[in-house]
Amino acid sequence: MSKREFAEEVNTANAFSVRYQISEVLFTGQSDFQKVEVVQTKGHCKMLLNDDLVMITERDEFVYHDMITHVPLFVHPNPKKVLIIGGGDGGTAREVLRHKGVEHVDMVEIDKMVVDACREHIPQTAVGMTDSPRFTLYIDDGLKFVNDFAAGKTISQKASMSPLAQKKYDVVIVDSTDPIGPATPLFGVGFYKDIFACLEDDGIVVSQGESPFYNQDTQISMAKILSSVFPLVKYLNFTNLTYPGGLWSFSFSSKKYHPVQDFNPARVAASGLKFKYYTPHLHTAAFNLPQFQLDNIGQYLQA
Amino acid sequence: MSKREFAEEVNTANAFSVRYQISEVLFTGQSDFQKVEVVQTKGHCKMLLNDDLVMITERDEFVYHDMITHVPLFVHPNPKKVLIIGGGDGGTAREVLRHKGVEHVDMVEIDKMVVDACREHIPQTAVGMTDSPRFTLYIDDGLKFVNDFAAGKTISQKASMSPLAQKKYDVVIVDSTDPIGPATPLFGVGFYKDIFACLEDDGIVVSQGESPFYNQDTQISMAKILSSVFPLVKYLNFTNLTYPGGLWSFSFSSKKYHPVQDFNPARVAASGLKFKYYTPHLHTAAFNLPQFQLDNIGQYLQA
Repeated sequence: MSKREFAEEVNTANAFSVRYQISEVLFTGQSDFQKVEVVQTKGHCKMLLNDDLVMITERDEFVYHDMITHVPLFVHPNPKKVLIIGGGDGGTAREVLRHKGVEHVDMVEIDKMVVDACREHIPQTAVGMTDSPRFTLYIDDGLKFVNDFAAGKTISQKASMSPLAQKKYDVVIVDSTDPIGPATPLFGVGFYKDIFACLEDDGIVVSQGESPFYNQDTQISMAKILSSVFPLVKYLNFTNLTYPGGLWSFSFSSKKYHPVQDFNPARVAASGLKFKYYTPHLHTAAFNLPQFQLDNIGQYLQA
Repeated sequence: MSKREFAEEVNTANAFSVRYQISEVLFTGQSDFQKVEVVQTKGHCKMLLNDDLVMITERDEFVYHDMITHVPLFVHPNPKKVLIIGGGDGGTAREVLRHKGVEHVDMVEIDKMVVDACREHIPQTAVGMTDSPRFTLYIDDGLKFVNDFAAGKTISQKASMSPLAQKKYDVVIVDSTDPIGPATPLFGVGFYKDIFACLEDDGIVVSQGESPFYNQDTQISMAKILSSVFPLVKYLNFTNLTYPGGLWSFSFSSKKYHPVQDFNPARVAASGLKFKYYTPHLHTAAFNLPQFQLDNIGQYLQA
């Protein structure tokens, strides 16, 4: 296809850009929601970009997917039903389904083009969007999905056939893009009130939490919103290769379990699972935030 | 001066580059060792580059300088004499000198042009290179300096006048550039054998340890070298805005003290010092490495 030499992520607010050399554009399309591209990079294997922002690369996606998944699933003592909002590359579903105790995963991705592009070009993550009866994919608006579920409506014929259709979720994972474009409503209080209603009485929601450095306003507004809805809110940090500013966050909001005090590292060993980034020690360590981040959001967080 | 639009750091091995928009080139020169530049960026305040690699920016230098300095100085129970190798921007000296118990700092920077450029253009860090009698700057080769000191030679007239001239160092901080160009010998075993000899019997050396992602070979070779010289070696990670790959490391090598088990957080509170990145919790958390990094260097590290 195109003979472009690089994929460039421009960070206008902070006046810099990152140029990844590419050898081939594998897919490019404009969906109803965003521009979707998959490129073969020379340094980071295949890369998915939405609206010219790097979503995942094959080289470093393990960092993000390890930390968004295994932290909540090892804190909750018995997660059986999991909801993923977004996550159209499939990597989060892939990691959730490695937990044998999880009986069913519902995933709601708004943009079918992302799913199709990843299924064709990035099987490394798309393998998570499996035909297994443990997994159901909805091409739908996550905001509407949780609103309907919270209101007790039957989501769809497919959902009503799920073996756990009547059960609320143990863990919700909001694997969203940034608060620009289609994901904007996923950074609002209404969405999290609905998620609260979708969760069991000991449920947990983990969400993509932006950069503590570059997105300080978003972190503050989200921490405030989450702490107005959930009794326990914490943030954890991680670092991959391709998110600007290096340090990146997830929010962890919980009805009951504390992510460190209620975490039993023995469950990790007992699972038999192996990881490239996650460790039980790193699980705990990730919740220790730099001082400037504490200055911003510490007032909203549980000790 | 020049009307260049950006400073570009090219990472050839990993096929990407980062372009920082600049409004002005404040200084550019070619020393005997490297190209030295200070630019006014539009997003990260002033930036120092050596051979087109970002060394520091005013916006994020606090991360690096907090972690290279306060970790060893709060582990050692009574650091009085500190040696800095490199560190020509002055930020490490600035942070070391905040510790009131430190009686003297010797700093050995090979490139006078870096010192002069920072003193003229980046007072935020250069303020550390003070006229105070607590601080002595040597424009000299760090390799030669520690070799001479290890051999018991009088370093210079200036050094022999230092009040602690006869005492070995409690803490050595190797605040070096990457293992290309002038800093290459600072990644060798001979240098660390000399540092071992320069340290008191309970001394600590912390060194810039490169990227766990992008510089895996360097991390492995350095961990092996350090563990052949020191009885206790650990790595700690941090993340600033401008080092490629986000996650970055320091090595921590010690004759006696364990950086976590022998760390007393009460000393941090007692110091009265305030930080933007460092916290006592983050001190401990930083030593918890991702699994892939443990796979690379865990065999050389203390538990």
